[in-house]
Amino acid sequence: MKTKFINDPQQVTPELLEGYVLCYPGQVKLGGENIIVRAHPKDENKVAIVTLGGSGHEPALSGFVGEGMLDCSVVGDVFAAPGAQRLFQGLQLMKREAGILLVVLNHSGDIMSANMACQLAERAGIKVKQIITHDDISAGIDAPVEDRRGLAACVPLFKILGAAAEEGKSLEELMEIGERFNKKVATLAVATGVCTHPQNNATISDLPKGIMEIGMGQHGEGGGGQKPLVSADQTAAEMVDLLCRQLKPQKGDQMMLIINGTGATTQMEHNIIFRKAYRELEVRGLTVAVSRIQEILTVQEQAGFQMIMGILDDDHIDYLNNRRSDAPYWTTIGKNV
Amino acid sequence: MKTKFINDPQQVTPELLEGYVLCYPGQVKLGGENIIVRAHPKDENKVAIVTLGGSGHEPALSGFVGEGMLDCSVVGDVFAAPGAQRLFQGLQLMKREAGILLVVLNHSGDIMSANMACQLAERAGIKVKQIITHDDISAGIDAPVEDRRGLAACVPLFKILGAAAEEGKSLEELMEIGERFNKKVATLAVATGVCTHPQNNATISDLPKGIMEIGMGQHGEGGGGQKPLVSADQTAAEMVDLLCRQLKPQKGDQMMLIINGTGATTQMEHNIIFRKAYRELEVRGLTVAVSRIQEILTVQEQAGFQMIMGILDDDHIDYLNNRRSDAPYWTTIGKNV
Repeated sequence: MKTKFINDPQQVTPELLEGYVLCYPGQVKLGGENIIVRAHPKDENKVAIVTLGGSGHEPALSGFVGEGMLDCSVVGDVFAAPGAQRLFQGLQLMKREAGILLVVLNHSGDIMSANMACQLAERAGIKVKQIITHDDISAGIDAPVEDRRGLAACVPLFKILGAAAEEGKSLEELMEIGERFNKKVATLAVATGVCTHPQNNATISDLPKGIMEIGMGQHGEGGGGQKPLVSADQTAAEMVDLLCRQLKPQKGDQMMLIINGTGATTQMEHNIIFRKAYRELEVRGLTVAVSRIQEILTVQEQAGFQMIMGILDDDHIDYLNNRRSDAPYWTTIGKNV
Repeated sequence: MKTKFINDPQQVTPELLEGYVLCYPGQVKLGGENIIVRAHPKDENKVAIVTLGGSGHEPALSGFVGEGMLDCSVVGDVFAAPGAQRLFQGLQLMKREAGILLVVLNHSGDIMSANMACQLAERAGIKVKQIITHDDISAGIDAPVEDRRGLAACVPLFKILGAAAEEGKSLEELMEIGERFNKKVATLAVATGVCTHPQNNATISDLPKGIMEIGMGQHGEGGGGQKPLVSADQTAAEMVDLLCRQLKPQKGDQMMLIINGTGATTQMEHNIIFRKAYRELEVRGLTVAVSRIQEILTVQEQAGFQMIMGILDDDHIDYLNNRRSDAPYWTTIGKNV
């Protein structure tokens, strides 16, 4: 049975991208088939920030193309990597002496597309480095980095790298800034409802009503087991505890705390979760320096959210809070920018 | 059965507002019980823009408190008006010689709270005028204005009034600017799924899977009848047609087109709807000057969206696109602001 506002299921991705660029013509345009680029490109003497990933996670990833964030987003079909050839096309578009920094979320298809496209790019004389995100901690505290998937922490990373690139940082400097952020960021997802794939109407994962699963992945991959829904405060406290066990923040650390809605859960609930998570950090002597409650990376209409936590250095805070971006889905809420 | 991340159901509203102000301390703070005000107040010699309404519609209405938008949002409990006494308290906080413009969405509880609070304010020597929004067209094309509810078009109105107040427009000038916008804006809602009330878990409205209802109100009030879900393009075309029958735009008019997600429907779908709506305006010789796809006013997790359309004057476009706001849920996407 039809349950979503789509037309031809095979045309979902190009149609959603067409709608997107029609809505935000001052910021973004199509640079090729399923490739989103800035409407007003960055100076060629500055490093380009590029990413790749499947559609179905709107506003991510393409919603963050714009001044001060991404220069190019190469989009795959729903929940699918774009493939090496299309990514290579994006890299060709962004070719410049300053180089390209390619942000790759740790999912096997994306990694494979990125590795192959970077080989093609090197042969074509394109300077490109990869930075892999792996913020998910559902594989276990201190799990090997290869086992940790990339969840929504890519979005603040886009902001940091985009702002730093805008001020003229080199490719090597950007790698250092980004890796330093990646090492001290962690995300934990919780789901309370399933989503359906828009192309085949298949329900992704199996989660009965009134049941929550902590550790649910971005495509419905199972996490840490199911249990009856507990209160907002208990959920938040449990998640903060797990994230702090991974990050091991010290008293006085400056923290990032973002609640990313993944779909059907209300923002009212996210606010209530944020409230308790903030208080949990407060009692540990930690300061929240960067915060946000928003749907930045969704999983179709999957109910639940991701809690993203990071220990920030001063430059990260400055890049996140005090630099302008006109990316359509980044709200600039810091100092007078 | 518990299905939402809350604690005590009676504490939903104060807890969500506490989370909100903890997340955005640079923009907003509590000015009293369930009253949100700007962290950095506007100059006292400028008109204050105030609104009122129930919670449960996050990010609306309080998400738009900030520089260049609202000065104060007086919040009721879930889907409930705040009552005259609390609104009067908000008006007292905003008292100034330049006056207060109170934006009221046309719902009986809000109207009653506003009328009583304005009487109390007048007796206390507070200068206040009301502007009523009534953008919903589900009561029928050219229905009497009193029968038309206030839907999400209040949000662009907040932006217009906030920007105009910021540049020093008088209360009388603001009334004119706002009423001129109100007369040429119309909204139509469609729902494809129900939401549950967070305080009693009751399902609001009755909508089987695979069925859509055009004209569904902001609290589940029924609209123009139920029918099986049709394609995105058919839905968008039908809605544009109804909205144009109300607004009667002329070739060359500059239009506002906003898709407001009400909850569980994916942004992917909103983009696809926007795409067709834009093309429908294009074939009528109309230009889209202001556009946005965002959850600005939700109805808990109700699947569906509101299509907001307006015929804009040049000053409206300027206020919407080119003026800075730091309200946490307004993304500034226009000129270099």
